[in-house]
Order: sequence, then structure tokens, then C-alpha cells
Amino acid sequence: MLIIKIGGGAGINLEGIITDLAAVREPSLIVHGANALRDELADRLNMPKQVVTSVSGYDSVLSDEAAIDMILMSYAGLRNKRIVELCQRHGINAVGLTGIDGRLVQGARNTGIRVREGGKTLIKRDFSGKPRSVNEPLLRLLLDNGYVPVLSIPICDEAGFAINSENDDIVVSLHAALRADRIVQLIEAPGFLADPDDERSLLAQLTRADVERHEAQASGRMKRKLLAVKRLLEAGGAGLVIADGRGRTPLRDALNGAGTRIG
Amino acid sequence: MLIIKIGGGAGINLEGIITDLAAVREPSLIVHGANALRDELADRLNMPKQVVTSVSGYDSVLSDEAAIDMILMSYAGLRNKRIVELCQRHGINAVGLTGIDGRLVQGARNTGIRVREGGKTLIKRDFSGKPRSVNEPLLRLLLDNGYVPVLSIPICDEAGFAINSENDDIVVSLHAALRADRIVQLIEAPGFLADPDDERSLLAQLTRADVERHEAQASGRMKRKLLAVKRLLEAGGAGLVIADGRGRTPLRDALNGAGTRIG
Repeated sequence: MLIIKIGGGAGINLEGIITDLAAVREPSLIVHGANALRDELADRLNMPKQVVTSVSGYDSVLSDEAAIDMILMSYAGLRNKRIVELCQRHGINAVGLTGIDGRLVQGARNTGIRVREGGKTLIKRDFSGKPRSVNEPLLRLLLDNGYVPVLSIPICDEAGFAINSENDDIVVSLHAALRADRIVQLIEAPGFLADPDDERSLLAQLTRADVERHEAQASGRMKRKLLAVKRLLEAGGAGLVIADGRGRTPLRDALNGAGTRIG
Repeated sequence: MLIIKIGGGAGINLEGIITDLAAVREPSLIVHGANALRDELADRLNMPKQVVTSVSGYDSVLSDEAAIDMILMSYAGLRNKRIVELCQRHGINAVGLTGIDGRLVQGARNTGIRVREGGKTLIKRDFSGKPRSVNEPLLRLLLDNGYVPVLSIPICDEAGFAINSENDDIVVSLHAALRADRIVQLIEAPGFLADPDDERSLLAQLTRADVERHEAQASGRMKRKLLAVKRLLEAGGAGLVIADGRGRTPLRDALNGAGTRIG
């Protein structure tokens, strides 16, 4: 089976990806982002992100109740259902779900961020966490009956609350359960770049050792992404491609050798 | 099985309804509205409804692309997933879906409204229509495996487009396929009122003949609602209750005799 992770950037060609998917003859599953849409909506609703600074000096975005509302509207609502609609228009029987539907992606809620407020140290707990397992029977039920699951955050915490999480980690959990043959990640770049600021510096191939070297040198969001890639490689079994989601035929190109082959 | 239709008014006690549902020991399905939420969001985003006047003089709200976006954010996103979350928090394994997911509710798109513009008569076609059938195998798959489907608009037209539709008509289609034993409609009133402006005028019982008489006298939205009730009665088999969704234990009360019994 094929897992397709679609980035949430504004430049991603969703119609092109889904048109390509209509020609794919294997069980498929989509995980998508919507960060550009979420940011635009938050802007229009004048709901800026809540940022807190931890006692150790790191800034974190707080996923408060309003932030989850934004995710529900932009990811689970607008983006998820417009992708499902694109699928239906192209004869793909998609079913759009979040991680809380049928506890499809179950996670552990983060314990909180230590902050200083009014001279006291206190723990700020938000609605975010890490995926721990997926509801494999429900995914199999859908896949075995010819449906294409289209998945989005939020995921479900231990108590049933909707929490924010990273799609890269969700893909790792999905692959652990479903053992995909191929994983394609479509982003707003030609693939993995030697120089992030130079689109001509595409690396067509990365070995596992390359990934580990890059991960050791990276920081922040890129480090987290490379760590997720490392975990996919450790789980094994899948051909992994990171390719451009902006072209005319992004998925076809990625399946035909464009982008970065990893592993 | 039990079908629960939850109105989209701001006064509906969702937490109370879902708490009650956790004690219900039969397969259940929820259909919900979100009109108050949609109107509030449209207001905050400054996206007023588009109203057109037909050549015969009737005003209609046009479900243009932006209106469907509003439905996706408020109904399919925020309201649907917060209900699913409430269910998960109360141990109910809910799966939130719209009519386009797996073509769960398939409809026929309206042919359009004849309007006069710039001295010409033309047809304005929007994204709205009427449900014609439901994907019964997908619903059975979920119900038979212990899931509680939580359904919302939009539904799916012949070509796969997301279209607006009336929940009353969707419930008729669901009952035709699933043959519910009980149908409970929870609204922002004590039930069916003899005088719409007087909450003390609750009619505890309506016969089929009563419904037909009221329907013949009603107009607009109320006529459409009574027509849907008439069609439910014609399909037969279900105990139908319209009751107050605003109380502390709305579903328990409705199942225990509150509101209006119909049939």
C-alpha cells in the first residue's frame, strides 16, 4: 500500500495530486496538513498564536482550546473535506477522518511546559501530544472495502480530548501498523536540499547514514522531521520519497523518480 | 437502532445529550446541525449570505463556493469534531462524517434558480440539492463494528461535489435505509407547539392526521419540516419524538416521554 503525506503549504497542487492518485492501482491513504490555511484563518479571525517561553528559554506555541478550534475548522473541516471532494470528483471513494474519529490515532498528551509567571514557576498544559498507536482494525475495514482514508489532525489523547500533533510522527505510527510499500511526502521544495535556500541543490538520494548525519547537524523543526524519517527507515519495508508537491503532476513525478529517494 | 437529530441552535446542550447517550444500549447514529455556529463564523469573517430573488418573486440563499467553505468549517469541522470529542470523552466510539465521505449521503443537485439580471433571465445554479440515497453498506460496516456515526452536511452530488442540503431530508433517507426503531429530534423548543410563540402550548401527541393538517396550513421552513415528518411517518416503523435539546438531560427526557410524540 501507498501512504501519501501532503504538506500544508499554500503552493501545493492538490488537484494535480488527486488527479494522479486516480491512476494509482493500489490501496492508498492520505495524511495532509493545512498550516497555511490555518494561519490565514487565524489571521482573518484575529486569533494570534499563543506563544509561551519555558523556564529553560525555549519558545513554544500553546495549543489552547481556541487553537484546536482553528485546527478543526481549517484541517478537519475545510482542507480535509475539499480533498475528499476532489477525490470523489475523480472517482476515488475517499473517507475523511481525524485522529479522534474512532480513536484512529491515539496519543499521549504532553505533560506541560514549565513557565515563570508572576514570580512563580508553573506548568502550562495545552492540547498537544504525540501519537502512540493507530486503530488498525478501523483502517483495515476501510481499506479492505475500497475506501481511501484521508487523515488530518487532531489526534485523540488518553481521555478522549482532541490534541494537536505532528504529521511526521503520525506517518511513523501509520507505517508501523500498516507496513506501507511506499511512502511519498509532497512538500513545497524539489525534495531534500543540500542548501535549504537553493532549490537547485536537490539531493536525489539519501542513505540511512546521510539521514543520521543531517539529523545530528540539524536543529528545530528540521531535526524533528529528520528524526521521523530515521524512525521510518528503522521500521523498514517502505520506499521513501520526498518530492515536490507544486508541479503539474506531483504524485506521478514522485512515483516516477523525481525528488529525493531515501534509504 | 436510534437516530438522534441535534438542532444547530446556540442553546442546545450538547454535553447533556452526549452524557445521556453514553447510557443508551443500542446502535445509534447522530445527525447534527450548526447553523448558529455557521452564522457567527460568517459574521466574524464578514461573509454575508448571498440572497437572490427568483423571477417568481421568492428569495433564496445561494450556496456558493464560499457558503460551502463556511459549512465545511462550522458543520464538518468545528461542530462535528467537538461532538465526536464529547463522545470519545464519554466512552462512545464516534466517527464523524459528512455526506461526501464515502458518498455516505448521495443527492441530486438543484437545477438552479431563474433570476432576472441586466434585463435577461438566467439560471443561477448553486451547490445545493436533495438527498436521494445513502451508502448503507458503509453505515452498516461502522454500526456493526460498534461505532456511532456522527453525520453532518454537506452531501455529495452526482459528480462528487459537496452540496448543501436539509438535515430533515437526510434523516428521511437514513431511516429509509436503516429502519430506525426510534428517531429523536432535539430542538430549541419543548417540542411541537400549538402556538410557535408560546412555549407552554406544547402538544404532547400528534397523530398522522394532525401532521397532515398542520402541514397543509404551514408555510416556508415549517412546511418543509412537517413534510419531512410526514415522509418519516409514511415510511413507518419508528417511534418519532420531537423534544427540547436545551435541558440538563435532553436525550434521557426525550426517551422518557418529554416533548411531542408523533404517529
